Amino acid sequence: MKRILSAYRLRPEGLKELEGRYEIVLPKEKSHFSKEEVLELISDVEVFIPAFNFYTDKEIMDKGTKLELIANYGVGYNNIDVDYATKKGIVVTNIPHSVTEPTAEFAFGLLLATARRIAYYDRKIRTPEGVSWGMYGEAGLPVFGKTLGIIGMGRIGQALARRAVASGMKIIYHNRHRLDEAIEKLYDAAYVSLETLLKEADFVSLNAPSTPETIHLIGERELNMMKPTAVFINTARGNMVDEKALAEALKEGKIWGAGIDVFENEPHVLPELSELDNVVLTPHAASKTLEYRHNMAVEMVRNIIGFYEGTYPVSRVN
Amino acid sequence: MKRILSAYRLRPEGLKELEGRYEIVLPKEKSHFSKEEVLELISDVEVFIPAFNFYTDKEIMDKGTKLELIANYGVGYNNIDVDYATKKGIVVTNIPHSVTEPTAEFAFGLLLATARRIAYYDRKIRTPEGVSWGMYGEAGLPVFGKTLGIIGMGRIGQALARRAVASGMKIIYHNRHRLDEAIEKLYDAAYVSLETLLKEADFVSLNAPSTPETIHLIGERELNMMKPTAVFINTARGNMVDEKALAEALKEGKIWGAGIDVFENEPHVLPELSELDNVVLTPHAASKTLEYRHNMAVEMVRNIIGFYEGTYPVSRVN
Repeated sequence: MKRILSAYRLRPEGLKELEGRYEIVLPKEKSHFSKEEVLELISDVEVFIPAFNFYTDKEIMDKGTKLELIANYGVGYNNIDVDYATKKGIVVTNIPHSVTEPTAEFAFGLLLATARRIAYYDRKIRTPEGVSWGMYGEAGLPVFGKTLGIIGMGRIGQALARRAVASGMKIIYHNRHRLDEAIEKLYDAAYVSLETLLKEADFVSLNAPSTPETIHLIGERELNMMKPTAVFINTARGNMVDEKALAEALKEGKIWGAGIDVFENEPHVLPELSELDNVVLTPHAASKTLEYRHNMAVEMVRNIIGFYEGTYPVSRVN
Repeated sequence: MKRILSAYRLRPEGLKELEGRYEIVLPKEKSHFSKEEVLELISDVEVFIPAFNFYTDKEIMDKGTKLELIANYGVGYNNIDVDYATKKGIVVTNIPHSVTEPTAEFAFGLLLATARRIAYYDRKIRTPEGVSWGMYGEAGLPVFGKTLGIIGMGRIGQALARRAVASGMKIIYHNRHRLDEAIEKLYDAAYVSLETLLKEADFVSLNAPSTPETIHLIGERELNMMKPTAVFINTARGNMVDEKALAEALKEGKIWGAGIDVFENEPHVLPELSELDNVVLTPHAASKTLEYRHNMAVEMVRNIIGFYEGTYPVSRVN
């Protein structure tokens, strides 16, 4: 029987299909194993499930002499040294399907909450100073009729575009490769360079994968290209944005606002960011509902079963 | 030249079309006239523009002996004694078009911000206690695949339905009259009784007009019918909801959450509500962006011009 180690105490409901066919080791006392604990347990298992903030490095893979599969519980896999896994012959899988709609939903929620100042109002209305009830005071920004620039037009980017189109937005996008015309037509989406996107979009949403090439993809230079009325949304990965430059741009009014779910050093949030009123901050929660997390576990489990039994398709990243 | 009195200091850009053809009296020193000031000025004018929280009652209409038109700056006209206006031969107009998309946009933003806990996270992440970054802690509710019950399926309700369908929601609705099948098909929307809607919907959004019949349409009895996981959204009018019963239902967990933009005694917010973490509170801001407010002023102005010159259609409510 293959043995599985999960770094996180995943809920048992999502792991049911493994029962009786695989042996799974989960943390019992606390929510997740430390790196030291993983290093101790890894040598006994064929499969490792890292949580999304758990970095699976060379050391872990060297200790895991029986490792055959790293089944990531997330779509982004910047938490895994995939190149080294490939060298060692370890297969890495991710879960692109179950996070698509949740993430796009959350990104669009952040866009609306930032532009229409919903989170700001909710925060201020509870303070002794209160908030303006007047006709124009502390007004938000319109979304209807505005242009959304999507950086990374994969599954999540397209699911976001679908919502935005129904909300009266125009879509421009930048991607490694231009999409098929048939897909572009679905959203009436125009393919543009990153520079054009940054200059023309009223809303910029980051929905690309985190890779060595996309580290600090958005920095001071890119923020300076955006409109002073632009709103920036990040539900991808924190390391793709120079957070200090973002805080500076927000503070100086170089852009109007931002909705940020991911950070460079989670769970640490720059005080320069959390002191600002024109940013909405959420704790890497784009797929955080019990139902969505359950669906993610089922997709991850089926990667494992598919890998060993061939009964499900396997989403390999190497 | 016809004379117009505006209770609110509207921005001049939106009033441009009136220039040279109508004389308009606006507050100069402050944002709005008091009732006493309106009573003093009303006898000289043919047109009165009330702001949405300014109640235009018998006393004002009796003093306004030259009044021919009350051009409301809003779609809801529960701020005007329309029956009395009709008796006096005063025409009342409203602005249904320019607020449709803004209000639906805000309602959907509130729905996402409440269900996915965006406003809650943003509030908590800034406190010394912080917020959970774990897999399941302080999780929100899924929206994708869930059922939205829309009470009041007019322009705003339908604009909300369009957004919700693109976000993977199913639509049920209640309305005074069942809609044409062709419109139902656009949203795959099922017409149900109010009771069925309250019992079956995961999200309940109030988008009906405020009338004497809809006062406290949602009270203890209706809240008790909702699912314990239901989220209630109100962007219509505060008097349609028994606010104390709502606060009680939220506190007791009879429903999961609420997003509330309108209140029974604006700008007063019940402390029982603002002490709760499972509610998102906004200050009657569903159409509050400068662009939307401008479009509203243009629509309102064209009601006046259309009424006197016949060059624009007029949205009469009596």
